[in-house]
Amino acid sequence: MTANIAILGASGYTGAELVRLIAGHPKMRITALSADRKAGMAMADVFPFLRHLGLPQLVKIDEIDFSGIDLCFCALPHGTTQAVIAKLPRNLKIVDLSADFRLRDLAEYEKWYGAPHAAADLQSEAVYGLTEFYRTEIVAARLVAGTGCNAAAGQFALRPLISAGVIDLDQILIDLKAGVSGAGRSLKENLLHAELSGGTHAYSAGGKHRHLGEFDQEFTKIAGRPVLVQFTPHLLPMNRGILASVYVNGDPALVHQTLSHAYAAEPFLKVLPFGALPSSRDIAGSNFCHIGVIADRIRGRALVVAVLDNLTKGSSGQAIQNANLMLGIDETTGLMLAPIFP
Amino acid sequence: MTANIAILGASGYTGAELVRLIAGHPKMRITALSADRKAGMAMADVFPFLRHLGLPQLVKIDEIDFSGIDLCFCALPHGTTQAVIAKLPRNLKIVDLSADFRLRDLAEYEKWYGAPHAAADLQSEAVYGLTEFYRTEIVAARLVAGTGCNAAAGQFALRPLISAGVIDLDQILIDLKAGVSGAGRSLKENLLHAELSGGTHAYSAGGKHRHLGEFDQEFTKIAGRPVLVQFTPHLLPMNRGILASVYVNGDPALVHQTLSHAYAAEPFLKVLPFGALPSSRDIAGSNFCHIGVIADRIRGRALVVAVLDNLTKGSSGQAIQNANLMLGIDETTGLMLAPIFP
Amino acid sequence: MTANIAILGASGYTGAELVRLIAGHPKMRITALSADRKAGMAMADVFPFLRHLGLPQLVKIDEIDFSGIDLCFCALPHGTTQAVIAKLPRNLKIVDLSADFRLRDLAEYEKWYGAPHAAADLQSEAVYGLTEFYRTEIVAARLVAGTGCNAAAGQFALRPLISAGVIDLDQILIDLKAGVSGAGRSLKENLLHAELSGGTHAYSAGGKHRHLGEFDQEFTKIAGRPVLVQFTPHLLPMNRGILASVYVNGDPALVHQTLSHAYAAEPFLKVLPFGALPSSRDIAGSNFCHIGVIADRIRGRALVVAVLDNLTKGSSGQAIQNANLMLGIDETTGLMLAPIFP
Amino acid sequence: MTANIAILGASGYTGAELVRLIAGHPKMRITALSADRKAGMAMADVFPFLRHLGLPQLVKIDEIDFSGIDLCFCALPHGTTQAVIAKLPRNLKIVDLSADFRLRDLAEYEKWYGAPHAAADLQSEAVYGLTEFYRTEIVAARLVAGTGCNAAAGQFALRPLISAGVIDLDQILIDLKAGVSGAGRSLKENLLHAELSGGTHAYSAGGKHRHLGEFDQEFTKIAGRPVLVQFTPHLLPMNRGILASVYVNGDPALVHQTLSHAYAAEPFLKVLPFGALPSSRDIAGSNFCHIGVIADRIRGRALVVAVLDNLTKGSSGQAIQNANLMLGIDETTGLMLAPIFP
Repeated sequence: MTANIAILGASGYTGAELVRLIAGHPKMRITALSADRKAGMAMADVFPFLRHLGLPQLVKIDEIDFSGIDLCFCALPHGTTQAVIAKLPRNLKIVDLSADFRLRDLAEYEKWYGAPHAAADLQSEAVYGLTEFYRTEIVAARLVAGTGCNAAAGQFALRPLISAGVIDLDQILIDLKAGVSGAGRSLKENLLHAELSGGTHAYSAGGKHRHLGEFDQEFTKIAGRPVLVQFTPHLLPMNRGILASVYVNGDPALVHQTLSHAYAAEPFLKVLPFGALPSSRDIAGSNFCHIGVIADRIRGRALVVAVLDNLTKGSSGQAIQNANLMLGIDETTGLMLAPIFP
Repeated sequence: MTANIAILGASGYTGAELVRLIAGHPKMRITALSADRKAGMAMADVFPFLRHLGLPQLVKIDEIDFSGIDLCFCALPHGTTQAVIAKLPRNLKIVDLSADFRLRDLAEYEKWYGAPHAAADLQSEAVYGLTEFYRTEIVAARLVAGTGCNAAAGQFALRPLISAGVIDLDQILIDLKAGVSGAGRSLKENLLHAELSGGTHAYSAGGKHRHLGEFDQEFTKIAGRPVLVQFTPHLLPMNRGILASVYVNGDPALVHQTLSHAYAAEPFLKVLPFGALPSSRDIAGSNFCHIGVIADRIRGRALVVAVLDNLTKGSSGQAIQNANLMLGIDETTGLMLAPIFP
Repeated sequence: MTANIAILGASGYTGAELVRLIAGHPKMRITALSADRKAGMAMADVFPFLRHLGLPQLVKIDEIDFSGIDLCFCALPHGTTQAVIAKLPRNLKIVDLSADFRLRDLAEYEKWYGAPHAAADLQSEAVYGLTEFYRTEIVAARLVAGTGCNAAAGQFALRPLISAGVIDLDQILIDLKAGVSGAGRSLKENLLHAELSGGTHAYSAGGKHRHLGEFDQEFTKIAGRPVLVQFTPHLLPMNRGILASVYVNGDPALVHQTLSHAYAAEPFLKVLPFGALPSSRDIAGSNFCHIGVIADRIRGRALVVAVLDNLTKGSSGQAIQNANLMLGIDETTGLMLAPIFP
Repeated sequence: MTANIAILGASGYTGAELVRLIAGHPKMRITALSADRKAGMAMADVFPFLRHLGLPQLVKIDEIDFSGIDLCFCALPHGTTQAVIAKLPRNLKIVDLSADFRLRDLAEYEKWYGAPHAAADLQSEAVYGLTEFYRTEIVAARLVAGTGCNAAAGQFALRPLISAGVIDLDQILIDLKAGVSGAGRSLKENLLHAELSGGTHAYSAGGKHRHLGEFDQEFTKIAGRPVLVQFTPHLLPMNRGILASVYVNGDPALVHQTLSHAYAAEPFLKVLPFGALPSSRDIAGSNFCHIGVIADRIRGRALVVAVLDNLTKGSSGQAIQNANLMLGIDETTGLMLAPIFP
């Protein structure tokens, strides 16, 4: 059986990445594509790299007949998503790629996103979409909230260590390097090639990045006590990929062993041999996350480095992985594409 | 039935690209990988982006038992390949990605490559691997010689026009822009990031690039008279992709119509609407070639632009397309991957 | 004596490049900077790379007291400039970097820019700012119209050849590769790093690029008969630099000799030895233009390659060179900065 | 008076950067250039971007007559430099850009560089070249040892904080992002454009980078007790520039105030307003270092970010700054070039 899929917000990068991945998925068929401002256009005119595919024309959301849709991906901007999803049929399976349903606590949502949540009931229904840690819930979920891409990278490096109690919970520092596609197709001066290429800078520094809301929620939940991490993302002159340098206090060999053991059976999470660190080049375009651990020269300190592709494992690949579970399809279906290099 | 595949020269970019593509091919299985200087290493140590695959260890060529191999890809350097292939079993199907067997005329080979050919008999047996134009011969071939990547781009733009007699054969000019992976994993100063990024230059200018040997051979054969084109490649600060700007004298609408008609049924060759030109970004990582035609303001002159990925449609993807034909597999098998963007 | 300088449109790339160059100019002092939408801001907040300079605050044009200004650079958008300049004091020396005053023929202006010219009298007064060919006029000029950056590159390659009658005037083809800063600080999707990097495409192809108006005007004037060239620019993933590949029919050695002789005494135009071609990397950030000539394998055809930095020799450096002449300062003052590499 | 300058090792990036900067220096004249493997070549053939300069031909070191040389820059590889300098005239002023004379303690040298030092007497004579902190010694020095480029960035962020006692000396973490020119003109696979662009990775992680030797020496000396920092450099797809993210425990406002006060009179060190962080794009090609401080959301933790150009302030610009002092020239002479952007 092939599932009928709708993608809302198909004119952005995560929407296009969903199309790219589903094009090779044997059990999904794209039935509807929406893009409000570009409604009426062919997808090939918005994204010529998808020219070879026979895709439905872009329409407005309210032109879609959801009765034949098995699952809907929402790749819409933060903030506007909650109102859109509130109007969708209540029995429709939804994987949301925005930030709107990631935080359980409505006060936390308001704190990080600057406005009260408009769909509190849906918020309480939503399951947090970090597949490897919420499989059971996702299988049963109707609405899954995809994680932040940076939040995914940091959690893959840290969750097993917090669960196992092998690191100091008050000395966790995430220095993250992010490719520019994570900023979306936004028209901002500092995202222009002329301004971005050739240099780097920190952004949302000082504990202001919204993905901290996810770190706080999840790490505190695992630890059973408040856990606050330091987190500084940097924008790099590259299109895809995140490299999270995670500094922890704890026995480095035990840190490595804990992660290796936790992910031994995971198809997408690969822990390198102790002392080896991954490159963000080695996962581009794929759903894989590579993780390495090295001991610092200072005893009791370790560096964990996690890399993933923000558009794939960090958003659209993760979304399909979750959709597979929700649709009763094998979790890795359509997602075993090798990375692309060089 | 799954074909057993050997790849000789797996430590270069075209070798790695073969592995990437075959990893998703439902009817091929990699049985042996050679890399002389890196024999004994795991592929994951040479190309960590292939870490997730269970691949055979790299060995020397003479360590391979070819008795169980159905088809062998040779991704070895120009010049050394002919001696290697001469020693392989005479009944082994071979797709060669080097330049050694592309030219039919041994004098031409010596002229362009600077040394006499060491395997004249094999040279005469080899079929030129531009799939869309040599399908019948490739199906029956034992040894197929993959085309030059630039040579492929130029021919896709020009062959139907020469066949149809719609352009002036004495005024063909190919100004080509090439990504750096076409130069291979060569340790040269001008291929360093510090030297290549941020600028461009012409190379092998003035009619010296070896792919001219292929243009001369093929265009002359089609036209039935000598055809010499002008051809200047430029190296661009990008990793993958070729954009060939092909200037011809002829009626632009007829040029477009001729190409559209010629490629109407081709799965990988996409002709854009008249007046639209393609971007090399839109085929990265894929086996597609996009072609556009626009009229110049000067009557009777047209610009044809063809884009393809040098590592895929220009070499390893083409090689698998040919191998599919040689093995009786549907030609597009394993090759319908969407490009990757951004 | 130090000249007091105003720069209108200081928040764009050519405006900032003027500031960068004037910062090291011993005989110019920046007295006023305008930027309508950013009026009230400090230049260091618009362009932090200029933080170390003590610069006047950005103001609106009508806040500037022009009585103490010796020369004014206009780095405003095409189309709006003519109205601004029409309101400036009639005795103020002006170097305009926009396209508004480049074309002598008002009909040609309207043809290429799509609207009638609003300041016909100024248009007739303006001198075309290709310094090396209009020195005498520029020394005496009040209003100099800077050339298009592409137009400069093409003319440096071709003017002496047309003057000397050593090439076929009906077979001139300019295939040009341009860095993205030439597009200015424009918020367009295809200028985003995520979309531009990693690929290339032709733009304004088919004889539609506005710099053709300059080619037509100048080449026709030199030749004394209509000369129409083919011209296709391509956008490259690099920030600065233009490489113009100019294909001509003529004796290659004579072509080289003609250019060498024409530019023997020019401080900024460097002709390489016959057979050597320049790289755009070698002039980045400087006012130099490197030119090379190579013979094609087809007798009687030559390739001329010219490279320059679009922001420097192609606009702001040229503008200062012209301003030096207008102010009676040695032409090279402040402009001998070496390129930056890597 | 103009000083006669020799540059040993002129065929590498720091050598070429010295030439670029000295070309605009009013009180230095390049009298001799050496490059052992490229002796006999013109500098314009090794670095065409310097084509416009009248430079002496490259020679071997022993072909140089040092009697007329006022100061010699050594831009030779680590390890080989000490033997070369040991043979130079004992009264020749020398600024060395290699690592050979940076460490005072011979045991530390051997620990970090893997071999005993071959010129212990010179080692003890050499002055550490971090200009802003060793001015008095540099003025009087004969041999100055330029700092590591990463070491410079880290020290600019930290020295005043350690001196003032405003941060916890046991919790200093430097996560550094470096452009590729810092690796020199080395022919290594991972420095190729095809491999470096598009991604990032940590290198020399775990406390193995040799610049730690400088951090240990200097910070311990300032603090009067052992100070060990954590330091992880990452290689970024950019050519020039270092961004050091330095995490400290201390009152953020006091951290900012301490740095602002320390550098108030420094011509090249610019401290941004509290809460603003610098971009590495804003110092490219210049001798400036921008420093910013922001408070973390966790009380008592601060992020200090320092950016500089590894080839300029991190090596060749610093070297000229030191040479100016040694020659009695004003320290900023020839070094006030604005950065280049975009």
